[in-house]
Amino acid sequence: MHFLRSSLVNRNKSKQLLIVLDGVGGIPNTVKTELDSAKTPNLNKFIKKSETGCHIPIKLGLTPGSGSAHLALFGYDPLEFDIGRGILEALGLDIKITDKDIAIRGNFATIKKQSGKNIISDRRAGRISTNENIRIIRYLSKKIKYIDGYKISFVSGIEHRFVCKVTCPKKITQEECRISDTDPQSEGLEPLLPKNLNKKSSKISKILINLINKIRTTLLHEKKANFVLFRGFSTYPKIPSFSELYKIKSASITTYPMYKGIGKLVGMEPLKLDKNDLKSQVKSIKKNINNYDFFYLHIKKTDSYGEDGNFKMKSKIIEEFDQNLPEILKLKFDVIAITGDHSTPSKMKSHSWHPVPVAIHSKNSFIGLSKRFNEVECLKGSMGIFEAKHLLTLMFAHSGILDKFGA
Amino acid sequence: MHFLRSSLVNRNKSKQLLIVLDGVGGIPNTVKTELDSAKTPNLNKFIKKSETGCHIPIKLGLTPGSGSAHLALFGYDPLEFDIGRGILEALGLDIKITDKDIAIRGNFATIKKQSGKNIISDRRAGRISTNENIRIIRYLSKKIKYIDGYKISFVSGIEHRFVCKVTCPKKITQEECRISDTDPQSEGLEPLLPKNLNKKSSKISKILINLINKIRTTLLHEKKANFVLFRGFSTYPKIPSFSELYKIKSASITTYPMYKGIGKLVGMEPLKLDKNDLKSQVKSIKKNINNYDFFYLHIKKTDSYGEDGNFKMKSKIIEEFDQNLPEILKLKFDVIAITGDHSTPSKMKSHSWHPVPVAIHSKNSFIGLSKRFNEVECLKGSMGIFEAKHLLTLMFAHSGILDKFGA
Repeated sequence: MHFLRSSLVNRNKSKQLLIVLDGVGGIPNTVKTELDSAKTPNLNKFIKKSETGCHIPIKLGLTPGSGSAHLALFGYDPLEFDIGRGILEALGLDIKITDKDIAIRGNFATIKKQSGKNIISDRRAGRISTNENIRIIRYLSKKIKYIDGYKISFVSGIEHRFVCKVTCPKKITQEECRISDTDPQSEGLEPLLPKNLNKKSSKISKILINLINKIRTTLLHEKKANFVLFRGFSTYPKIPSFSELYKIKSASITTYPMYKGIGKLVGMEPLKLDKNDLKSQVKSIKKNINNYDFFYLHIKKTDSYGEDGNFKMKSKIIEEFDQNLPEILKLKFDVIAITGDHSTPSKMKSHSWHPVPVAIHSKNSFIGLSKRFNEVECLKGSMGIFEAKHLLTLMFAHSGILDKFGA
Repeated sequence: MHFLRSSLVNRNKSKQLLIVLDGVGGIPNTVKTELDSAKTPNLNKFIKKSETGCHIPIKLGLTPGSGSAHLALFGYDPLEFDIGRGILEALGLDIKITDKDIAIRGNFATIKKQSGKNIISDRRAGRISTNENIRIIRYLSKKIKYIDGYKISFVSGIEHRFVCKVTCPKKITQEECRISDTDPQSEGLEPLLPKNLNKKSSKISKILINLINKIRTTLLHEKKANFVLFRGFSTYPKIPSFSELYKIKSASITTYPMYKGIGKLVGMEPLKLDKNDLKSQVKSIKKNINNYDFFYLHIKKTDSYGEDGNFKMKSKIIEEFDQNLPEILKLKFDVIAITGDHSTPSKMKSHSWHPVPVAIHSKNSFIGLSKRFNEVECLKGSMGIFEAKHLLTLMFAHSGILDKFGA
């Protein structure tokens, strides 16, 4: 898909803006969804000049993680490109990853001797505090710097979570890093070994076994966090960038590190913000409007409140966005798409597979089919229900940068 | 698709029910379809708590047979998995097939000597009666038991149709059984030889030539059915089962052998029935509710009456189903999907390619878009129009047994 699109691109001076309200889609809580219930006079006006539809993030019935959902919105087939768990965690903690690095999601855990065996008694080390985590990570970082010439770094996350980065002497491929998780997913069991899943990954497997043994002896004195469990051993994914594929300059305007990181994966330059709020995000776009062709604006809290089951606050975040929309419209983008990366119905308190409303505004939009930016109205639109990976093609079409396909 | 789904399954205690009203979809006969015209107070209530849409059995414009349509509903790509004609006939006659067997669809035919050649004068032997068929099959079964050490069995079908089963000394693959049909599809021609279509199938080709010669000499005295035509030489298809793929126990509740057989192909255990009616089917589900995770309930007569062009009776069968629905709902399934395997509009008296209504009820259904379980209303639903092979993913999503896709 991205190669086909790439082959048709003929860059012009158009400015495009993709607005992602994270997890914005919902299902009716009583009779309304969050989008139905929000007061959105500006969105209501906007929708009347927009082409509408709904997207399915991955495939029907599949609930996406943030990484794969965003790759789809950025026009990549999420079944083809895979962001490893370790990389996503690293992006979330703003850790720089290169093509020499292996990123690993780590959990502190508690193990106990039981008839001669090391048994996991708590997979999360009693959910130690983030401060405790920081203390232990500092200690580990001081004690463990290299394993067999491979540089080791640790970065604290929230509670029991951290990221471990293994920097290899030279470039490392995902094949050389196909290693099984060490978390047996259940307490009362022994931790698993980081096994190599093919011949090429045997070297890394040995390094990791040595690393885990070293961590074990280093943490022996700890009461709770006396061991670690490793998951999602992953290398930096090779994703062709927006500038390589389309010869366009792209920027991300995000308030959370993870989304800045996902943007970077596809070559988006993160814009600086005065403050971590939507007003500053809009201000930053305004300041940089002449420097880029494509802008990705990410709004996180629709998802966060959805995950909390907070219908009211999710609606409120939508209303806040609505209040900022006129300022965005003043910037005279040629194409503005508004959507979510997936649904996070507050009724479910989790991501879901349900279709996500999409609106695209340009001078060539097929208008007049939807009365509001919500699920029910967008389902009536001329874009129908489509897989998210096609959205970028639609935006490019509206921007006039795509040549005809075929003779 | 089934492998991707399989990789995400995390079995829980949910109970799922797939109800297939065979051929339920229709096209308007005057102004209404069979589903429109049926009085269905219970379905009407059910639909208001359900997520809706329409499925396309295979691909737009393709009219499916029962086998491929069901494979799609069971989540397999019907273009990838192929149930041979011989196997489907054998399933329909409730013949046990193993991985040593070749199943062949047979027709009795009449041949005549004409300028030294054997010419087919009737490809259906004058559509002999089923009783005649039974008499001849008995005779053949007595006279032909083995060919070159390969066991031969015959089972009567309706009129001129029968199934011939060749049991090999050991496992047989579809490659070893790639044989061309012997029916030239036209009268006045010589019957064709069962030719091997690759090197591996030359052995079986020789056996079949010997078998056909033996049948010819055995039936020389018959006036009408003095020859046979063979089609669809097929081995038992290798389809990964529900329990292999998803670690769930599945059961089929069917009144016709063919559907029991199709269920068995994917590992569904057929439940016993007191009587061959819907009431007994529902009773059987109730009795076995604790023993399985996934139930497949098949209702045949919507299709049969559709094929007869009997609009009224097809509607009546839908009404009967409606009367039994409350009993089904009492069983407290976590997910209930109601659909057909394909459309059988009574106006067409045949299967068709038209979209088939789907409703899925669970606590996370996107409700409120369709007012009735019929074609027009279901087209308004949030599932849109989708290929049938995705239905199982949607049911699994509603049951909560699918992990997130991607990090």
